[in-house]
Amino acid sequence: MIILGIDPGTATTGYGLIKIPDDILGREFKYDIELITYGNIHTPKERLMQDRLRMIYSELTKIIKTYKPDQMVSEMLFFGVNSRTAIMVGQARGVIMLAAAQNRIPFTDYTGLQVKLMVAGAGRADKAQVHEGVRRFLGTDGRKRRKLKVNWKGGHLDDATDALAIAICHVLKMAAK
Amino acid sequence: MIILGIDPGTATTGYGLIKIPDDILGREFKYDIELITYGNIHTPKERLMQDRLRMIYSELTKIIKTYKPDQMVSEMLFFGVNSRTAIMVGQARGVIMLAAAQNRIPFTDYTGLQVKLMVAGAGRADKAQVHEGVRRFLGTDGRKRRKLKVNWKGGHLDDATDALAIAICHVLKMAAK
Repeated sequence: MIILGIDPGTATTGYGLIKIPDDILGREFKYDIELITYGNIHTPKERLMQDRLRMIYSELTKIIKTYKPDQMVSEMLFFGVNSRTAIMVGQARGVIMLAAAQNRIPFTDYTGLQVKLMVAGAGRADKAQVHEGVRRFLGTDGRKRRKLKVNWKGGHLDDATDALAIAICHVLKMAAK
Repeated sequence: MIILGIDPGTATTGYGLIKIPDDILGREFKYDIELITYGNIHTPKERLMQDRLRMIYSELTKIIKTYKPDQMVSEMLFFGVNSRTAIMVGQARGVIMLAAAQNRIPFTDYTGLQVKLMVAGAGRADKAQVHEGVRRFLGTDGRKRRKLKVNWKGGHLDDATDALAIAICHVLKMAAK
């Protein structure tokens, strides 16, 4: 099963693709999560907003066609943002959800709190702790690193790490059911 | 010139199409605004959000293909809404802006304050005053009513009136330049 995690934003939409065995229920799945690829869709801020949304939609559609994910997952934010920011994130979410619907891919949402709890073990985890959690689940420390198809770029994943954290959260939630 | 006004929302997206002479600058354009059509795109609340967004996108794309608007206009809300509402409206806006970009139609935004000021003459105008303004500009009172291609349904336009108000605001703003 291939899962596409997405961290939506107008300037940068991070994405991360992971693969898990189809029979994850009740398994010790931890080390069976395979990193396929990850990256960021950047849009130039001097372009019109509608063009930037078209770029996100277009790039994401290409990623979907290439990797054929079985599930799409994103993060829902409700608190701590002003309504202007919420509208902007909502716009990016809109075209992402449209791409999911058009390709008949189930779409799931988690809150930032859920992602932090599942991936870093604490709802108040900071960014570094979440990234450490991602590294741990994807086995990129020590011996496991060699198994990865894609290497970390100097240990940094930038915004795409959040997308991977969201995808991992989804795996843990599915396995816990 | 054909203008498509849109009042975005997940449950109901209102739309209104008006036509104006191409040379509106410096003209007494007031009675040259012609109503083409208007309506609401309703999405069932029991459907998944991504499917509702796909419906809005799909219906709006049909409207664009049918009426070939030269301009698209929408309302931007920043204040007085919580972030959950803002995200929801943002999602609907996202697929609307995507449809504009894909069809290479210029997209403009006005605040609710601007729409009220231009159409009803007061930033604090209530819904009834805005609707009255729409009727006045589209000449639906008395003699002018017969010129309309589309009749008011028993005097009510519901949510689509807001979309028409947004389109009229754009005309007035363009004429004022």
